[in-house]
Amino acid sequence: AVRQLVEPLHPADIADLFELTPSERRPALAKAIADLLDGEVFAEMNDYVREDLIDALEPHEVADIASELDTDDAVAIIEDLDADDQREVLRAMEPDDRAAIEEALSYPEESAGRLMQRELIAVPEHWTVGDVIDYLRADDALTTDFWEVFVVDPSHKPVGTCKLSWIMRTPRPVPLSDVMQREQTLIAVDMDQEEVALRFQKYALISAAVVDGSGRLVGMVTVDDIVHIISEEAGEDALLLSGAGEGDINEPVITSYRARVRWLIANLATALVAATVITLFEGTISKMVALAALMPIVAGVGGNAGTQTMAVTVRALATNQLTESNTLRAIRREISIALLNGVTVAIVIGIAVSLYYQHIELGGVIAAAMMANILIAGLAGVVVPLTLERLRADPAVASSIFVTMTTDSMGFFVFLGLASASGLVG
Amino acid sequence: AVRQLVEPLHPADIADLFELTPSERRPALAKAIADLLDGEVFAEMNDYVREDLIDALEPHEVADIASELDTDDAVAIIEDLDADDQREVLRAMEPDDRAAIEEALSYPEESAGRLMQRELIAVPEHWTVGDVIDYLRADDALTTDFWEVFVVDPSHKPVGTCKLSWIMRTPRPVPLSDVMQREQTLIAVDMDQEEVALRFQKYALISAAVVDGSGRLVGMVTVDDIVHIISEEAGEDALLLSGAGEGDINEPVITSYRARVRWLIANLATALVAATVITLFEGTISKMVALAALMPIVAGVGGNAGTQTMAVTVRALATNQLTESNTLRAIRREISIALLNGVTVAIVIGIAVSLYYQHIELGGVIAAAMMANILIAGLAGVVVPLTLERLRADPAVASSIFVTMTTDSMGFFVFLGLASASGLVG
Ligand SMILES: [Mg+2]
Ligand SMILES: [Mg+2]
Ligand SMILES: [Mg+2]
Ligand SMILES: [Mg+2]
Ligand SMILES: [Mg+2]
Ligand SMILES: [Mg+2]
Ligand SMILES: [Mg+2]
Ligand SMILES: [Mg+2]
Ligand SMILES: [Mg+2]
Ligand SMILES: [Mg+2]
Ligand SMILES: [Mg+2]
Ligand SMILES: [Mg+2]
Ligand SMILES: [Mg+2]
Repeated sequence: AVRQLVEPLHPADIADLFELTPSERRPALAKAIADLLDGEVFAEMNDYVREDLIDALEPHEVADIASELDTDDAVAIIEDLDADDQREVLRAMEPDDRAAIEEALSYPEESAGRLMQRELIAVPEHWTVGDVIDYLRADDALTTDFWEVFVVDPSHKPVGTCKLSWIMRTPRPVPLSDVMQREQTLIAVDMDQEEVALRFQKYALISAAVVDGSGRLVGMVTVDDIVHIISEEAGEDALLLSGAGEGDINEPVITSYRARVRWLIANLATALVAATVITLFEGTISKMVALAALMPIVAGVGGNAGTQTMAVTVRALATNQLTESNTLRAIRREISIALLNGVTVAIVIGIAVSLYYQHIELGGVIAAAMMANILIAGLAGVVVPLTLERLRADPAVASSIFVTMTTDSMGFFVFLGLASASGLVG
Repeated sequence: AVRQLVEPLHPADIADLFELTPSERRPALAKAIADLLDGEVFAEMNDYVREDLIDALEPHEVADIASELDTDDAVAIIEDLDADDQREVLRAMEPDDRAAIEEALSYPEESAGRLMQRELIAVPEHWTVGDVIDYLRADDALTTDFWEVFVVDPSHKPVGTCKLSWIMRTPRPVPLSDVMQREQTLIAVDMDQEEVALRFQKYALISAAVVDGSGRLVGMVTVDDIVHIISEEAGEDALLLSGAGEGDINEPVITSYRARVRWLIANLATALVAATVITLFEGTISKMVALAALMPIVAGVGGNAGTQTMAVTVRALATNQLTESNTLRAIRREISIALLNGVTVAIVIGIAVSLYYQHIELGGVIAAAMMANILIAGLAGVVVPLTLERLRADPAVASSIFVTMTTDSMGFFVFLGLASASGLVG
């Protein structure tokens, strides 16, 4: 019965079905539709869900599934296995499939070498459009899914790319070198996937040639895989900024716990720094307890202002919109916005506190402290991620903790310090 | 001199060059390379940078630029003009270009109707592969950039899609209906771009047919435009969660100020709620000022825990991984993680405070309060975005403010309440 419902589904929908099924029921589902559970379905599946299912399979079954797939998808399935399983699966594969996957695994994780498929169409420069068409029709072993043909020289170095639409719109006798595009974006085999994705985005690529260190064509990256990377890379920054790690809802609880608790403990440490600042002013607070109620406002709104600037900066860095040439401009811009925000919020909180406590001096102190902390927040929000980037750290990973520490500590310090120095509390 | 440097660049690189140039120097640059500044360059440019340059052009110049482009790119340039300019530019266009753009503008912003290009290849079902090739070679007016051919019935409704690679690998006499794929993903003309992007991602599409209300083929969406939307939609959530609005670094300062100050004022309001909670316990604090130094720790770490859960939930909702069928499972999962995080952080802070203040009861109170607030944070972090989603609000837009209000207020309330109720302060 389940089988009949699942049969007409697209592999991506079958994969989703597994993801939405509670983990304890997944093995039963896998058994009920075993013959529909092919490589395409595994390729579409969430990493954690797939690992669960694959752990229950024999190495030769995994090898069969991987052999159906293009190298990039086979690698995605095999790279996450632990070393023992990986060796057994590879041993169960045909020698040529095995060699292709072992080569891919020799490149760093998240590099073009892992992402590329070896299945592609490469043709010599001296061919005509007709030669290409005859070649494609004649050889049954060629890949069927491709969008462009790569033109290579005798040493297998790419010299041009030809969209299929151009080939189809051109008469058979025309030489390829007349229709191919010579300016092409070549991807180095060890380029990071984030960089690959930015190239695809910028130059509106559908596929791109991957070349090894000596410039020879070794594979092809296609946009359908890039689309997943763009979504992952752009989406992960919100998760990283919050300290939630990968933030995948299919992750085992214990993995999520480990990823998150680290940042909570780090946050605890920075909160202790802020607490120490408050401790310096315990005398002031005991003379005017209202300060204790008001100080979190200065710290909290400052924290929010810092988070805004930080999110903007991290995003601009991730999309290559912020480079050395416009860093100063960006800092000046954030300071201008912070000035406007600071004046606005300071006026509102100043008036509110003056009226509520019937105490204009207190209103003045909190307004001044708020203004100062929002300026500090704006500066920290742009300088912290820029510094991390310059230190070659991922600005999305650690910016939050430094920005929050700054806005909390400085918020408390400026507010309580001003209250104390202004003689407000006698 | 500038001209020679810019000439060999890709339109996307010329667009980047404008973005990196300070705004006051952009008009001079535009003048120096006027003849290189074609439609492709404008299509690649950031919205704000483009608006600036376009404001300086005459309506007929804008019309000429737009006429070079496919409808989707022309619409992107024209949709951002103010109503008057838009009317003048449209009046300066050829009637058929004008009609196509007016029709596109009649669809909602960020819908498939704005995103699609009218330039596509549609052929009848009874044609053979040879017929298609001859048609493509014969008609010079056809579009040159396409990746698939749409097969339509006599009423122009799509019945199948054919990748160019399949056509090229098939002998001329084979009927198209033998090689086309009948299961296709059709996009409704009023579908939101975020939904369109999810379809492209899920089914690994390169292009897709757009159909009107009666199912007739009216346009084509291509993946190179979807790539930008995926990046935008995935990246905007980090910005929205922080309250930074669009967060584009090319936005005018005043626009950024308006977007951000709203959330700072909202944050100020929620901070006042938290301050009120503290005010309830001013008596308790005045008896033991250490409480004032410790209370922000409980609120702050709770806030961080809530933000982690919220980021995970918002991302899972945005990627359609969290649906009604697994909501309960997700809530249970977050509570489990919160329990583990809570116990860990409570133990650490409990011991630290007990030792530092030499006061085991105080350590017990802060540990219990921390545990409680991290649990509350976990619950708020998952329930708030889910509720907003159910109310058809964007969970990325307003979740932060509610989660922070909860963790701040409850953090202060639980900690000060326990301190007071436990008789800690006599
Ligand atoms: Mg999926
Ligand atoms: Mg194989
Ligand atoms: Mg993986
Ligand atoms: Mg692939
Ligand atoms: Mg990454
Ligand atoms: Mg990143
Ligand atoms: Mg650009
Ligand atoms: Mg035109
Ligand atoms: Mg626009
Ligand atoms: Mg387009
Ligand atoms: Mg959106
Ligand atoms: Mg969204
Ligand atoms: Mg906070």
